[in-house]
Amino acid sequence: MDPLSATYAALADPTRRAILARLAQGEATVGDLAGPFAISAPAITKHLRVLTRAGLISQRRDRQFRPCRIDAEPLKLAADWTLQYRELWEGRLDRLDKYLQELQKKKPASASPSATTTNRKSKKD
Amino acid sequence: MDPLSATYAALADPTRRAILARLAQGEATVGDLAGPFAISAPAITKHLRVLTRAGLISQRRDRQFRPCRIDAEPLKLAADWTLQYRELWEGRLDRLDKYLQELQKKKPASASPSATTTNRKSKKD
Repeated sequence: MDPLSATYAALADPTRRAILARLAQGEATVGDLAGPFAISAPAITKHLRVLTRAGLISQRRDRQFRPCRIDAEPLKLAADWTLQYRELWEGRLDRLDKYLQELQKKKPASASPSATTTNRKSKKD
Repeated sequence: MDPLSATYAALADPTRRAILARLAQGEATVGDLAGPFAISAPAITKHLRVLTRAGLISQRRDRQFRPCRIDAEPLKLAADWTLQYRELWEGRLDRLDKYLQELQKKKPASASPSATTTNRKSKKD
């Protein structure tokens, strides 16, 4: 699997995203990580393996512990790929803005909705 | 699958990312898309299904054609999630910058590496 696909595949799971969010605060051991998620240590270990393969985390040995730390570089590359299309979502908002401004311009400054209704009514009468 | 996981899972494939890159240029039919990728129309259709389920594209009916268009909103959410961690990768670059500046300061302005070597050599002699 190419590195960018591996990163996105690793991010495609809410537990793995939560693990990264926790590691963004600082190093943590498998035990530290298993606690708040109420899932087994082996399940955590499996998630950590996916994150490690994607280069999103690394583990160092500290006596009997193997604390994990986040490696942010693949996140940067994942962000960069999506940000190529920023214009598409910003363009859509710009067009909506323009449309709302046009609507605003079309409405005469002094006329309130009720005044318009009254005018139309008097014309009809 | 939660929406963000579905988006990342859809992005975890180079052909699907290439389809999105093509659709960012404008609408395209399955036929238009199958051409440059040299993969079968059924394979393209399968990829389009994954992209549709993630809300990344939509298809409209135009007589016998069903042109696809990109929907950028999920890409924005995918970008937003990764950008939460921007500080981590920018912080690392800042620290590298500071380290290089410190190295620069420690090096006396007049001393060149060859001058240092000569000094050391003459001391030994």
